[in-house]
Amino acid sequence: MAAKGNAVIGQSGGPTSVINQSLVGVVQEMRKAGLVDQLLGARHGVRGIVNDDFIALNDVKDELLERIAQTPAAALGSTRDKPDQAYCQNIFKSFAKHDVRYFYYIGGNDSADTARIVGELAAREGHALKVFHIPKTIDNDLRVHDHTPGYGSAARFVAAGVMGDNFDNKSLPGIKVDVIMGRHAGFLTAASVLARQHENDGPHLIYVPEAPLTEEKFLADVDRVYSKQGRCLITASEGIGRPDGKTWAEAMASNIDRDAHGNIQLSGSGALGDFLAALITKKLQPPGGKKLRVRADTFGYLQRSFPGFVSETDAREARLVGQMAVKYSAQGEAGGSVAMKRVPGADYKIETFLTPLSTVARETKHLDPSYIADGNNITEAFKQYVRPLVGKLPVVGSFDEIAAR
Amino acid sequence: MAAKGNAVIGQSGGPTSVINQSLVGVVQEMRKAGLVDQLLGARHGVRGIVNDDFIALNDVKDELLERIAQTPAAALGSTRDKPDQAYCQNIFKSFAKHDVRYFYYIGGNDSADTARIVGELAAREGHALKVFHIPKTIDNDLRVHDHTPGYGSAARFVAAGVMGDNFDNKSLPGIKVDVIMGRHAGFLTAASVLARQHENDGPHLIYVPEAPLTEEKFLADVDRVYSKQGRCLITASEGIGRPDGKTWAEAMASNIDRDAHGNIQLSGSGALGDFLAALITKKLQPPGGKKLRVRADTFGYLQRSFPGFVSETDAREARLVGQMAVKYSAQGEAGGSVAMKRVPGADYKIETFLTPLSTVARETKHLDPSYIADGNNITEAFKQYVRPLVGKLPVVGSFDEIAAR
Repeated sequence: MAAKGNAVIGQSGGPTSVINQSLVGVVQEMRKAGLVDQLLGARHGVRGIVNDDFIALNDVKDELLERIAQTPAAALGSTRDKPDQAYCQNIFKSFAKHDVRYFYYIGGNDSADTARIVGELAAREGHALKVFHIPKTIDNDLRVHDHTPGYGSAARFVAAGVMGDNFDNKSLPGIKVDVIMGRHAGFLTAASVLARQHENDGPHLIYVPEAPLTEEKFLADVDRVYSKQGRCLITASEGIGRPDGKTWAEAMASNIDRDAHGNIQLSGSGALGDFLAALITKKLQPPGGKKLRVRADTFGYLQRSFPGFVSETDAREARLVGQMAVKYSAQGEAGGSVAMKRVPGADYKIETFLTPLSTVARETKHLDPSYIADGNNITEAFKQYVRPLVGKLPVVGSFDEIAAR
Repeated sequence: MAAKGNAVIGQSGGPTSVINQSLVGVVQEMRKAGLVDQLLGARHGVRGIVNDDFIALNDVKDELLERIAQTPAAALGSTRDKPDQAYCQNIFKSFAKHDVRYFYYIGGNDSADTARIVGELAAREGHALKVFHIPKTIDNDLRVHDHTPGYGSAARFVAAGVMGDNFDNKSLPGIKVDVIMGRHAGFLTAASVLARQHENDGPHLIYVPEAPLTEEKFLADVDRVYSKQGRCLITASEGIGRPDGKTWAEAMASNIDRDAHGNIQLSGSGALGDFLAALITKKLQPPGGKKLRVRADTFGYLQRSFPGFVSETDAREARLVGQMAVKYSAQGEAGGSVAMKRVPGADYKIETFLTPLSTVARETKHLDPSYIADGNNITEAFKQYVRPLVGKLPVVGSFDEIAAR
């Protein structure tokens, strides 16, 4: 048995573009700290722990680590497994067998919950296990955390993608729907507001799950914008809901042929976008009038996995929370979720702190009502919140800047 | 009436990320050449010409021009109008009214055809109009041209997007279909081959319109890869076809509920991807077996309009063909399409030449059969062709480089 014991790190849930930054932060900081004998990387999260599927991370060269840090998705593999008590018991058994004293779990609120349960089991059994949750989620929906690593890069992709699509839509006018990830929280869709660079730029309408939306309001909104501007660019969260509490996706699923389309799922499918486009065509096409040009794109996994286009702030912070997890360990902290908060002041600056796992686990955070306007727009307050997380957007220009049209 | 006469420039067809580079190339070179009194930018291509909707481009400042050059989609506005003889007459009339001596039309093969007809009309009427076609298309399907501006950047987006998705798919294994633009030509889908960085990396299957595909072969291919690797990443062109000459999209359209989905269109819809995913689930899900995780993404307009991620080679060449159109004009050339060819040698180098509009107009170019292997893969020969056009891809890394798995 090793003298200092060992540590395990794993990655969980939907990948992000910077989740490996956190991993590399832990690996490199652990090497400096010399806190344990072995740092073991669990393949596919908790699944690797119960299956004894580990990679030794102590001696991985920095050259490779730095390339992995720039690589999207979980380099150790991820998992959608949500361990129950029995599964957590098996995790704990594996830890006992490998003399694991520190467990670092990179993930969202479900992962924080797994980490919490495993930690509680260990405490009950008198095993000296310290558990650290390292946040990641493009949804940005962790309570207590000001924001989460992974969000800024996904938001940057969304803002840039919608910015480009605005110019496309201006170039060949029509009605365009862009469906953005975010099942329960509208943070990612809201970030599309940053795409507006000139007056009249889209997105002209922004729909988030936090603002219930009737079909009537949606169509009236689109009609109004299109009638005025001759074009309309819409961003809609995959999780938009109706006043009756159902999501649009659920409502749609009951209307369309499941056989032709398999199971309705929100991500990895263009069904909601196509449904919204078809609805617009069906309800707003004037009989005998010029044919409406309606299109929909679903940004899909590109939002969380596109390489080479991360937010520099996001990449830096993802690395930082990994490093801090080890620093807190070395300082003898008992464990928790490594969170960020803003330091008050004119310039954007963050500091980290530990928050108990129970404060982050399970429940999700939503867009503050002050960030939403008229059920179809996003406020200046949100722009101020999100801008530093996204960082620099591509430079663009338009003849509108000189031409009086 | 002006002494030197005037010039008109317009943009047409589906936008690209670098179409404004060509526009700016013409504007700046024209300023240097002093060939005309006024350079007029037609709003929305031929439509602006017949509607007398122009912007004066002579005095636009370089600072704005350089920002516009970096902005995706047609800054002057584009059009899908395909002028008939009567429309071309109206174009010609507008040119006569404005004493237009040079016409620069940035577009694909349809635009080359429009340019050709207007040029012939002018010649017949004894009007001294010189017509230059400046190529752009993400489809890369212009005859005579080695490749076309706009393609390299779209190909870079596709290659990087699929590269990221490969890591995502490896992280959370399953079957994933990515639908790529390209109605008749598979150049863009083929570029996804560049995503492979390690052994076993996806895309594992690549389907292009040039290789007719049966449902049986598709399913057998997917089954084989998935059985062996436990995952499967597929790229499929939106225009993939069947041996009977129908496209899969057409075949699908006759099977699904048009009311729920509106008109079936290839781009701006996730229908084909969803159809392929549903087909896989329906036919390959083992009864009672572990549920297959099948997802589809349709890359959509992001491929042609994503800002800040262009191929540097593509941006430079798009600028160059614009500049060269004016240089050829100043040299007294009679007109034509500004094409690129590779200079033989070890390093990638191109030179431009003029090819008659008739050689480029209408018909499209397809992937050479030597670029396709087994109806589901792309060859090394294509990789050599495409690599310099795409330029540098994001740097990535994987633990597979050290772990014997």
